[in-house]
Amino acid sequence: MKRVDVLMEALPYIQQFHGKTVVVKLGGHAMIDSDTLDTVIQDLVLLHYVGMKVVIVHGGGPEITSKMKAMGKEPKFVGGLRITDLETLEIAQMVLVGKINDGIVSLIARFGAQGVGLSGNDGNMIIAKKISPKKVVVDDEEQEIDLGHVGDIEEINPELLEGLINKGYIPVIAPIGMDRKGHSLNVNADTAAGEIAIALKAYKFINMSDIDGIMNAGRTRTYHRLTISEAKSLINEGIIVGGMIPKLDACIKCLENGVSYAHIINGNKNHNLLLELFTREGIGTMIKKE
Amino acid sequence: MKRVDVLMEALPYIQQFHGKTVVVKLGGHAMIDSDTLDTVIQDLVLLHYVGMKVVIVHGGGPEITSKMKAMGKEPKFVGGLRITDLETLEIAQMVLVGKINDGIVSLIARFGAQGVGLSGNDGNMIIAKKISPKKVVVDDEEQEIDLGHVGDIEEINPELLEGLINKGYIPVIAPIGMDRKGHSLNVNADTAAGEIAIALKAYKFINMSDIDGIMNAGRTRTYHRLTISEAKSLINEGIIVGGMIPKLDACIKCLENGVSYAHIINGNKNHNLLLELFTREGIGTMIKKE
Amino acid sequence: MKRVDVLMEALPYIQQFHGKTVVVKLGGHAMIDSDTLDTVIQDLVLLHYVGMKVVIVHGGGPEITSKMKAMGKEPKFVGGLRITDLETLEIAQMVLVGKINDGIVSLIARFGAQGVGLSGNDGNMIIAKKISPKKVVVDDEEQEIDLGHVGDIEEINPELLEGLINKGYIPVIAPIGMDRKGHSLNVNADTAAGEIAIALKAYKFINMSDIDGIMNAGRTRTYHRLTISEAKSLINEGIIVGGMIPKLDACIKCLENGVSYAHIINGNKNHNLLLELFTREGIGTMIKKE
Amino acid sequence: MKRVDVLMEALPYIQQFHGKTVVVKLGGHAMIDSDTLDTVIQDLVLLHYVGMKVVIVHGGGPEITSKMKAMGKEPKFVGGLRITDLETLEIAQMVLVGKINDGIVSLIARFGAQGVGLSGNDGNMIIAKKISPKKVVVDDEEQEIDLGHVGDIEEINPELLEGLINKGYIPVIAPIGMDRKGHSLNVNADTAAGEIAIALKAYKFINMSDIDGIMNAGRTRTYHRLTISEAKSLINEGIIVGGMIPKLDACIKCLENGVSYAHIINGNKNHNLLLELFTREGIGTMIKKE
Amino acid sequence: MKRVDVLMEALPYIQQFHGKTVVVKLGGHAMIDSDTLDTVIQDLVLLHYVGMKVVIVHGGGPEITSKMKAMGKEPKFVGGLRITDLETLEIAQMVLVGKINDGIVSLIARFGAQGVGLSGNDGNMIIAKKISPKKVVVDDEEQEIDLGHVGDIEEINPELLEGLINKGYIPVIAPIGMDRKGHSLNVNADTAAGEIAIALKAYKFINMSDIDGIMNAGRTRTYHRLTISEAKSLINEGIIVGGMIPKLDACIKCLENGVSYAHIINGNKNHNLLLELFTREGIGTMIKKE
Amino acid sequence: MKRVDVLMEALPYIQQFHGKTVVVKLGGHAMIDSDTLDTVIQDLVLLHYVGMKVVIVHGGGPEITSKMKAMGKEPKFVGGLRITDLETLEIAQMVLVGKINDGIVSLIARFGAQGVGLSGNDGNMIIAKKISPKKVVVDDEEQEIDLGHVGDIEEINPELLEGLINKGYIPVIAPIGMDRKGHSLNVNADTAAGEIAIALKAYKFINMSDIDGIMNAGRTRTYHRLTISEAKSLINEGIIVGGMIPKLDACIKCLENGVSYAHIINGNKNHNLLLELFTREGIGTMIKKE
Repeated sequence: MKRVDVLMEALPYIQQFHGKTVVVKLGGHAMIDSDTLDTVIQDLVLLHYVGMKVVIVHGGGPEITSKMKAMGKEPKFVGGLRITDLETLEIAQMVLVGKINDGIVSLIARFGAQGVGLSGNDGNMIIAKKISPKKVVVDDEEQEIDLGHVGDIEEINPELLEGLINKGYIPVIAPIGMDRKGHSLNVNADTAAGEIAIALKAYKFINMSDIDGIMNAGRTRTYHRLTISEAKSLINEGIIVGGMIPKLDACIKCLENGVSYAHIINGNKNHNLLLELFTREGIGTMIKKE
Repeated sequence: MKRVDVLMEALPYIQQFHGKTVVVKLGGHAMIDSDTLDTVIQDLVLLHYVGMKVVIVHGGGPEITSKMKAMGKEPKFVGGLRITDLETLEIAQMVLVGKINDGIVSLIARFGAQGVGLSGNDGNMIIAKKISPKKVVVDDEEQEIDLGHVGDIEEINPELLEGLINKGYIPVIAPIGMDRKGHSLNVNADTAAGEIAIALKAYKFINMSDIDGIMNAGRTRTYHRLTISEAKSLINEGIIVGGMIPKLDACIKCLENGVSYAHIINGNKNHNLLLELFTREGIGTMIKKE
Repeated sequence: MKRVDVLMEALPYIQQFHGKTVVVKLGGHAMIDSDTLDTVIQDLVLLHYVGMKVVIVHGGGPEITSKMKAMGKEPKFVGGLRITDLETLEIAQMVLVGKINDGIVSLIARFGAQGVGLSGNDGNMIIAKKISPKKVVVDDEEQEIDLGHVGDIEEINPELLEGLINKGYIPVIAPIGMDRKGHSLNVNADTAAGEIAIALKAYKFINMSDIDGIMNAGRTRTYHRLTISEAKSLINEGIIVGGMIPKLDACIKCLENGVSYAHIINGNKNHNLLLELFTREGIGTMIKKE
Repeated sequence: MKRVDVLMEALPYIQQFHGKTVVVKLGGHAMIDSDTLDTVIQDLVLLHYVGMKVVIVHGGGPEITSKMKAMGKEPKFVGGLRITDLETLEIAQMVLVGKINDGIVSLIARFGAQGVGLSGNDGNMIIAKKISPKKVVVDDEEQEIDLGHVGDIEEINPELLEGLINKGYIPVIAPIGMDRKGHSLNVNADTAAGEIAIALKAYKFINMSDIDGIMNAGRTRTYHRLTISEAKSLINEGIIVGGMIPKLDACIKCLENGVSYAHIINGNKNHNLLLELFTREGIGTMIKKE
Repeated sequence: MKRVDVLMEALPYIQQFHGKTVVVKLGGHAMIDSDTLDTVIQDLVLLHYVGMKVVIVHGGGPEITSKMKAMGKEPKFVGGLRITDLETLEIAQMVLVGKINDGIVSLIARFGAQGVGLSGNDGNMIIAKKISPKKVVVDDEEQEIDLGHVGDIEEINPELLEGLINKGYIPVIAPIGMDRKGHSLNVNADTAAGEIAIALKAYKFINMSDIDGIMNAGRTRTYHRLTISEAKSLINEGIIVGGMIPKLDACIKCLENGVSYAHIINGNKNHNLLLELFTREGIGTMIKKE
Repeated sequence: MKRVDVLMEALPYIQQFHGKTVVVKLGGHAMIDSDTLDTVIQDLVLLHYVGMKVVIVHGGGPEITSKMKAMGKEPKFVGGLRITDLETLEIAQMVLVGKINDGIVSLIARFGAQGVGLSGNDGNMIIAKKISPKKVVVDDEEQEIDLGHVGDIEEINPELLEGLINKGYIPVIAPIGMDRKGHSLNVNADTAAGEIAIALKAYKFINMSDIDGIMNAGRTRTYHRLTISEAKSLINEGIIVGGMIPKLDACIKCLENGVSYAHIINGNKNHNLLLELFTREGIGTMIKKE
């Protein structure tokens, strides 16, 4: 009977989210630990079956680094920035598209739904532009460094995604973009996920990472529910600082461009995703317009 | 966290039933007791939201009788059979279509889905034929009794239902049929529900009544899972007797005409419907082909 | 051969109305007299078959009153206003939805088309709000009277109607609305019909009642064709007075919200509907924008 | 009020024919006399507006002959058969497609519907094959005569017609076919109409000519209603003879290939078409399967 | 291998034009010389098969004149303007619709695609209005001359065309319009083609005539690529004069109403159409917005 | 002008193949040499633009082997068979899906069309079953060898492919299958391509490899056009031997299961694909049913 009560309590959320698009950025530990990933994918398949349109965007930085080392290729950094030469790009593509992406798709199948793995090359989905050289101080001297095959997103073509979603598939997207001449470029997964959420006019954008949510400077408090203006105040007042700020900014950009809710949750804890979506108080941070 | 476990355990059932049509006959106590009806409708709305196509057929005998008495019209019986004169038919229609049916539709709205109330007149859905007079022994004498405006179902036109289901409505059907000249006739709700399940090629036919399931003669055992052949054996061996037999026969007719599963459950116990569908052992009786 | 001439004379009207939506309010005597109703429904089925999209909204006040009395329930009025307690609402719903509405649907079937009976609960079609208490003078004292379960229409959701019309059904609508919590409310049938005509962007709104059309104060003249401005002048000049005014106002509201023509005709005279639509001079009153 | 009665009497026929396809062969006098043609087209537009899907196939022999003479081209006949050389074919095409066909289309527009004129070349609709030379006795000698650009129909491609019908156009077809190399050929209009009725699985095939219907040898009796077997008996018994036989055979071929009713009526009498379709006794000959 | 290189060079043009609508005006010599017409139609069928949506509008003045003479009807001119009496209109319709139009359709079939021949009567496509009498000086006296059944285009109804194009047919249109009462009128083919290009929001409007393109006054230079402003300058500076100006104006009207490119090419030279479309430098004149 | 002649000569082939599905297996040298691959992809994009529905299935064995070595993983063979342990599978997936597949997709974009890269995991497209251990003689002793994560294809689910093709994408498929529990398996690319051609009811199956076509034992003759029965005779008579036989068998299997034509061509020679398809004599081997 407990089962029944739970379902009944979940009903209002299920109704509210029915038919809505949810773009989920998968990152952090879940990309390396297969048990964690299993749970997350199972949760997403559940969301799919109770009526949401789920789109997954994943990262994979640590895995790329470890595979590069396994292949005897030393990652290069200049002034703290990673240099992506052609060989690095190839390894990144192999790891992101061939290993992580295709692996998520088969996990989705294992839990009973149907995924379709995509890179930004597919259907010209993510159009990007090689980023300009960055000024970096090396040995007390400012240098202009070409970061290589890395791109800023210029445009999302959502037709392919929309077609797949409407036929009941779960698209899984690797953060590879393409310039207008058809050359692949590494793009930032967080940015890609946000832009895709905007292009799809998603209801929710969910960023799953290794932190429990937006916290104050002393990490003594997690903010579970924030409006845009509250979030901005907390930043202005210096209460939210450091790495929290770009995460918040990405959420705010989504909300200011048509997405209704943005969430930041810790993907490493069992079923955090469901707890965040199906309980009133939530477990991570939810930001909404007002 | 329990909530999450429950949802995870429900997932395989949700997947299995996804997009499938379920025809539910609502009868018995639930037609009179509003708390019971609330729970049942809430369960059905949940089934709708997790992806099933729900169709409701309801009865209402006791309510008709009580309303007749309230209107000073004495129900007439000859040899145990109810006589449905024109006035009785009118009261039945008012109670079934105007009170019970429209009431269920507004309950569905209250729990967040959209219902459409129908009688068999709508879209020529239930075509029936006035039943022939019955031979009845009255005062030791056999008489032929005309039961009045009561019909046997000849044909179901499912187009209207299919159109509504595919647009996401929950059809709610009162057991009123129509003869080929456009005259209304009372039809048996169990039969109507079964025929509709067959016409819709439903996945499940669920009969909710006041009994816990199919039981043996001594009511010492409830059979939770039966195949058609097991059910027939139990009848032949005299283990299942009496009023249980027509209930079983109705289920078997469905199964032999394309329905995959038939269930008999007690609608008066809280959330029995979910327990029957979302647990392996079930709580009522499920009959399947083999 | 006369038959043929008539068809030829009807052709220009048939062409003009082809594929257009016509919302017809059925009221008055036709709701009680079955021969009158037969003729009206036959006319409407003809309109359907020559290509119009017919939507019927009906009233039923007198029938409710008579059924209340039959059930030993005395209609209550305070200061001339009817009080609708829960029991009254139940009787109204039974009469409107279970008797009149379902009866019209079977008549439509009898004349060879397919109707679908609806209340405002179906598909959340008529969203209403309980009306505020009215100030009434009783025994020389002003009192605030709660009229009970009566609603003002807030919103029409036309999707269900549009779906049914496009599949060739004739929707028949009882004047029952629903508040946002799923409670039924009695609504005014004239208002409901007008709002539905507006929501469907109907071509014609036809109000069938017991009067021959808009007449002057002395009832010496019937106005067959009026523009909005002519109608307003006649009111301002005191030529049209009394109960004619709200009827005209309802028509004007439709015309000012996208309906092309509004008609007021006497539904009790044989085939008035066809005479009004298929002859140049008409037989009731037609109001158009200019 | 007579108007109304007529409409009411027409209603059952309108219902019965609703949405059905009617292929009408227009021939004889109506092709030359513009008043007659006006009436016929008006009737067909009425059928269109009361819900039938009308397809017109027309002939035009006499008009071709008169235009040939006007152009100083003497029609050639050998042993009673017309020879169609290239020049004759060109004149036939100009008259049939450019004058008669386009003229019917503008008449349809004048009466308020939309026609689309077609030859068998359009959309590869009528695929024909040059007929083999005929043996003819000329001056007591048997000769093989090549009749020229005349074709037997091999295949009807109905896709273009179906597309136009479903969008509400009235297709008007000239009896020009095309061989598999794209050369135009004159084809028999009666045959073309019959084959098109079969290809469209039409409900009715109506042959409008200059005779009142199927008559006995002495022309003392017109048969208004016949079954296939009755028709065959009348032929076998020598009661129906001569030119009536090929007309009957064409109807029987339609009926044996899926058409439900075939009619032969005199197109020269005012509104015969409506009288045949909208009265029980009819005015020409109707043949049905049994 | 040369074949392959050519295909590869054509690829970028094929890509650019894919799915785009091209309205081609066929006129001049090609209407009389069957070899020239063969080549042009073959080119158009190729354009169709590599993915363009081709619409053909043709003229036929010389052919009408020669057929009139053959029929002993002398063309009448007053003050240089042709008078189109009813008989002339009939001949024009026969030649344009029955001979030229149907002939192009069978040519299209011969080269492997499917055409549909249309006049402006079909689907009420070209609505025109009889032109007003023109003032003409005859024998030193100004007279008002009624040019007869000649029309100015008022409106294009593109629905029929759009339906045919989307189903893969090549529409072929004769320059016959219809007034609002259903009377046919001769219309100018160049104007009809331009208006149809605008109504279809075509990508290209191509005018095939007997000149090589837009040339300067001395005919010493052909302008292959022009912008609207360049064209206007050349006219203003008196470099482009005479009959070139109306041709340019027609192109400019298209470009200012949504068409992207207008071309003027000589249809008498083999495959000029393909050379113009599939080479960078082109062979006639292409005008674009800027 | 040569350009134009070539296009005209290609037209009959373009017409014949229009709208037809072509499944192309890309293998051999083209998988390693980027210039060769460029040309092949350019050809395929041309086929796409002239109206064919192109589906690409690729291999990649040599690339996997070289990448394994680069990663310090020695390919293992027992008795001549490759052993695919988990690590080998991971490398294969990374190379096939992440490098080759995604690379082909970006090449397609570069040449102006839109590809979608897929593995058999996507949409549960290729369902396979781990192959049973093989008996192998090692050191004169027969052993049962488990080949590891290698699968035989059991079922193709073509829905995803069909959806993408109909929206104008070019699917690119890596030879990775999935067992019914969601585990990835290496599958043979030739077999995958053939099964996909059958599942899509393709018009053509084209196997591009490193040989010029089917040759006799002495490699003195290439057979350009063969029927199934001719091919079987040549095998039976010992004229075709060795590795040619499985290639022929794969083609024959396709032809016997609904594919119309099978081709074997050398993908390393410039534009062989177009020469094979667009010339009568062809350049490789074409096998058809009879």
